[in-house]
Amino acid sequence: MTDPHSRPRFVTLEGLEGAGKSTAMAFVREWFEARGETVLCTREPGGTPLAEELRTVLKAVREEPVAASTELLLMFAARAQHVERVIRPALVEGRVVICDRFTDSTRAYQGAGRGLSMVTIDQLAAVAHSGCDPELTFWLDVPVTLGLERAANREAADRFEQETLTFFERVRGGFESLSEREPARVRRVDATCSLNDVRAQIETELEAAHGG
Amino acid sequence: MTDPHSRPRFVTLEGLEGAGKSTAMAFVREWFEARGETVLCTREPGGTPLAEELRTVLKAVREEPVAASTELLLMFAARAQHVERVIRPALVEGRVVICDRFTDSTRAYQGAGRGLSMVTIDQLAAVAHSGCDPELTFWLDVPVTLGLERAANREAADRFEQETLTFFERVRGGFESLSEREPARVRRVDATCSLNDVRAQIETELEAAHGG
Repeated sequence: MTDPHSRPRFVTLEGLEGAGKSTAMAFVREWFEARGETVLCTREPGGTPLAEELRTVLKAVREEPVAASTELLLMFAARAQHVERVIRPALVEGRVVICDRFTDSTRAYQGAGRGLSMVTIDQLAAVAHSGCDPELTFWLDVPVTLGLERAANREAADRFEQETLTFFERVRGGFESLSEREPARVRRVDATCSLNDVRAQIETELEAAHGG
Repeated sequence: MTDPHSRPRFVTLEGLEGAGKSTAMAFVREWFEARGETVLCTREPGGTPLAEELRTVLKAVREEPVAASTELLLMFAARAQHVERVIRPALVEGRVVICDRFTDSTRAYQGAGRGLSMVTIDQLAAVAHSGCDPELTFWLDVPVTLGLERAANREAADRFEQETLTFFERVRGGFESLSEREPARVRRVDATCSLNDVRAQIETELEAAHGG
């Protein structure tokens, strides 16, 4: 029998809009719940009333151009609040935390996408959530055009969704680099498959991470 | 004749609430305008529509406790936007910028007051406003009790103004340390004096900074 404590406790879902993170989150949640775990599902930016206010500020389409450094600092402000108020306490209580986006999104969107320094991003990560990093990350990978097509069928485009195709290609490249740099943690899921296949890929990775 | 270009171009006003920064700002503005300068007066946190939104978020009295790291990152997010959209462009156009509070307030309130690391604050300053630092800073110094008394006669207390006396003593000590560490830039003004005396102190410092 494998030790249940070897299960990852902090799992994140990453990828472009339209990659299917919400559906994948349900699969991850069900896997843990079937094993008797208490699971907290949350999302970024957001997860507390204050952090959700910041999400609104970040996503608003506005006339005033938002400086890249402003966006970066705001993302980490929301994250610091989310980690201190929600994620860290849940982990301390022994719950499993599954989060839709975390610092890998910042590395992909603000780092690879907007060209901000990865060293700066790591410094800010240390300020915002020192000692609190995901143990397992699913990168839901879809071609940019497919993600955009799926996302376009939802509500009106926010400030991020109004970006160019080349921006999203850089973001996808950012996720790819992360999965190459940290292959044990960042697991690529082919998200062009059927939902059954996506679920199977996720369950295989969870079993493997479980040490089984 | 002294070179007008030796005049400081970016001047900040610092001190506790109730120290008289607004009145002092008018004195500084008048001194520059009397010398034919075009002056931009602005304030922090704030100074752009987005940064003013963040000011509201920061000052709101709320049930959810705000993590110290969240507050710190939010302050710098607002500052990055203010510098990129307002302060840097004004300086490039040759205007003099006078700002009510800047990174010294972060050092005093979040650093000395809340005990956050000065190294972290300097790292964030480099992210938010690299190469854009005040050349002259007036620290309007009043005893904590006098500042609080004056501030209490204004509107309802915001989240910062609800802090304890010992917090504000640490903040005052923070400003004092800054003036000791950078005596040429951070000039202490005795703000318990009459307005005429405060004006005289400020004008003397401006003449001295002017190299006259």
